[in-house]
Amino acid sequence: MKNILSKLNKAFESRIRLGIMSILSVNESADFNTMKQLMELTDGNLASHLKALETIGYIRSTKQFIGRKPNTQYTITEEGRKCFREHLNALEELIK
Amino acid sequence: MKNILSKLNKAFESRIRLGIMSILSVNESADFNTMKQLMELTDGNLASHLKALETIGYIRSTKQFIGRKPNTQYTITEEGRKCFREHLNALEELIK
Repeated sequence: MKNILSKLNKAFESRIRLGIMSILSVNESADFNTMKQLMELTDGNLASHLKALETIGYIRSTKQFIGRKPNTQYTITEEGRKCFREHLNALEELIK
Repeated sequence: MKNILSKLNKAFESRIRLGIMSILSVNESADFNTMKQLMELTDGNLASHLKALETIGYIRSTKQFIGRKPNTQYTITEEGRKCFREHLNALEELIK
């Protein structure tokens, strides 16, 4: 019997990670503060999920300065887009 | 700004809980061993998620004996069906 959960990606179990991937799927890039506001998160909570997604290669970050303020921009990677799409397909498959 | 995660139900963050709710959405009832096989889980892992969903009132269980073997059947509650539907709608909203 086929395991009905096997195609759901554990990396996307958290609501916050679904939120991050959704935001970065539809925007060319997004910065830390924008995502923080969109999801009403603390710095630490958002940072830990961003770091996890970056470590597995689903997103990448670029640090820059806007004036004297540091600004970190995030983008989705090709791998991230592919795996997120597969996860969404598996979700649809599970619940249809 | 509206929090894009606010309608996602934390009770359904785990893949296993999504699996349980999906199975019970489309079947009048399902027993422990069937769900265990469908999701390839250990007894303890499945039991803890079933207990959590039952505690918040999204599913209910009925214990019976089939011959001398105990058998626990699970069904989704009205509240569970409503909340799962809302969660799926919120997911669709988030990722569309």
